[in-house]
Amino acid sequence: MAETRQWRLTSRPTGEPSHENFDLVTVDRPDPGPGEVLVRTLYQSVDPYMRGRMRDAESYAEPWDVGDPMEAGVVGEVVESNHDGFEAGDVVTGNLLWAEHAVADGDDLRRVDPDRGPVSTALGVLGMPGVTAYFGMLDVAEPQPGDTVVVSAAAGAVGSVAGQLAGLSGARVVGTAGSDEKTSWLTDDLGFDAAINYKTTDDLSGAMAEACPDGIDVYFDNVGGPITDAVWPLLNVRSRVAVCGQIALYNATEVPTGPRKLGKLIESRARVEGLLVRDYEDRWGEALDRLSTFIREDDLHYREHVVEGFENAPNAFMGLFEGENVGKQLVQVAEYDG
Amino acid sequence: MAETRQWRLTSRPTGEPSHENFDLVTVDRPDPGPGEVLVRTLYQSVDPYMRGRMRDAESYAEPWDVGDPMEAGVVGEVVESNHDGFEAGDVVTGNLLWAEHAVADGDDLRRVDPDRGPVSTALGVLGMPGVTAYFGMLDVAEPQPGDTVVVSAAAGAVGSVAGQLAGLSGARVVGTAGSDEKTSWLTDDLGFDAAINYKTTDDLSGAMAEACPDGIDVYFDNVGGPITDAVWPLLNVRSRVAVCGQIALYNATEVPTGPRKLGKLIESRARVEGLLVRDYEDRWGEALDRLSTFIREDDLHYREHVVEGFENAPNAFMGLFEGENVGKQLVQVAEYDG
Repeated sequence: MAETRQWRLTSRPTGEPSHENFDLVTVDRPDPGPGEVLVRTLYQSVDPYMRGRMRDAESYAEPWDVGDPMEAGVVGEVVESNHDGFEAGDVVTGNLLWAEHAVADGDDLRRVDPDRGPVSTALGVLGMPGVTAYFGMLDVAEPQPGDTVVVSAAAGAVGSVAGQLAGLSGARVVGTAGSDEKTSWLTDDLGFDAAINYKTTDDLSGAMAEACPDGIDVYFDNVGGPITDAVWPLLNVRSRVAVCGQIALYNATEVPTGPRKLGKLIESRARVEGLLVRDYEDRWGEALDRLSTFIREDDLHYREHVVEGFENAPNAFMGLFEGENVGKQLVQVAEYDG
Repeated sequence: MAETRQWRLTSRPTGEPSHENFDLVTVDRPDPGPGEVLVRTLYQSVDPYMRGRMRDAESYAEPWDVGDPMEAGVVGEVVESNHDGFEAGDVVTGNLLWAEHAVADGDDLRRVDPDRGPVSTALGVLGMPGVTAYFGMLDVAEPQPGDTVVVSAAAGAVGSVAGQLAGLSGARVVGTAGSDEKTSWLTDDLGFDAAINYKTTDDLSGAMAEACPDGIDVYFDNVGGPITDAVWPLLNVRSRVAVCGQIALYNATEVPTGPRKLGKLIESRARVEGLLVRDYEDRWGEALDRLSTFIREDDLHYREHVVEGFENAPNAFMGLFEGENVGKQLVQVAEYDG
């Protein structure tokens, strides 16, 4: 019988995840049951939110069980289909496993059109991160022409799209990122008006104030922590904060503390709102249409940070917390030769 | 020449305000200029937000200058009018001074109808606190039938109205307050479904969870700090937080810190919004009409905590931070014999 490999969670991390939390196992390749599809993984996504699923605590995503294979966004090729909607050779995307092959209910898969662009984009700019940026920026944060918009983790999969969408709305866009390579990408290629390398800036509050002389009307927050602390005093009257991620806090081993933030909201009558992309499931198509149009018209640029080889999936995941990725972090598991 | 007395700010407090920050001075009674009105104070309001004006820092209200008389909401009787809209004997309300007599531009005064109820209510349930509660609860927090609504400082001028309005919207209402007298008032007279005495509760988080078995859909926050910390983990999906005041933090001498709160918003997709009643100036009449109808129909109850004598105004103000008041804290400066 054919075999395949899976990454399983062998223990829950305390603080930063490490190699000992992951185990690569070889198992029998599963057979698709009725209505199911066997998928060969081409690209696997690793995302900051997965850190929450490694915890033994209810969050917005169910915790993974120790000993079980972990789940991931995957783009893959159909090997065998018992579902009317798919046939062998189709490219699909869905939530599958950290695995070289996995079965899924065909109803849970979406088709990826290889003519629309690289199939890997279905995990990035034309997938969950892009759609998150789309609704988070345009529905929750609502930048207006002339607004000053700050995006944290602006060189990440979500932030890079969010910032460009704000720019397309006519806003002035400031991004934070953790390397000069990233900040250059933001200002030189993505049209950001300013970018702050938070790792080399001694005075984050001062740098933020300097980059935002008219205060901040929109803050799209992917990181939390000290960058958010630097943004907060600059929030303008009727500003909006879209809370999308808090990666700076995900590895915390104690309850993270910081300056109390709610008082500022009275003075500024600011609105702070958290978002989860799954609330927008029925509008996913709208976002993909707009995003692919922007890409086609060269108004939206993206990068993918591809680690090759399934055996490197945990490295790619752990790299997220070091800020190693520019753009969307992916693991290439197999070549697409479609 | 006739004289009058004023309270002036003589120094800025560090931490809790004390008597040495205030000075009672006797001055010539001012003459009203063209368009101005001389008002004899009947009731003076003291409010938590005034603590912000004692600081030498821009907030939503201008800081008071050291040496100058302080401002306050006042209900008074017109002594002399150079304004077409008012004549001697009229009862008016407006932002005047901590003073027994003061002049104001007639355009800045509103008439108080003594037939509508006690004139003092123009500083409480039918004044700034009531209108704040009205828009904060109904416009910002938007309780729905069946929602669980938590109001902090629920026995205060704003909280007592906010909680009752939530109850009138069909919500289940839980209040926090700092004495058994207050919590009894909430549950016995104001129709709150539960009340927590935060001063005698060892385990605030546990008490909050017990009082809110279905989580919290609306939090109307007047205090900040540990009560807010107890509310936060219980916020339901799509819950709303109206941030109206943070009295627990107003006397802080260092930047107050606490658990970082924004991550919870992702999971709960909660909306947190600050409010200032002055944004609703053009809808003030709508609120007063509704509130007075509720009072007339016995659906809205209120209490006033009246300290007699102008010389006690600083005591009344300082008492706010000790939670001495049940309902609206007022200083009665003169008898109304209209």
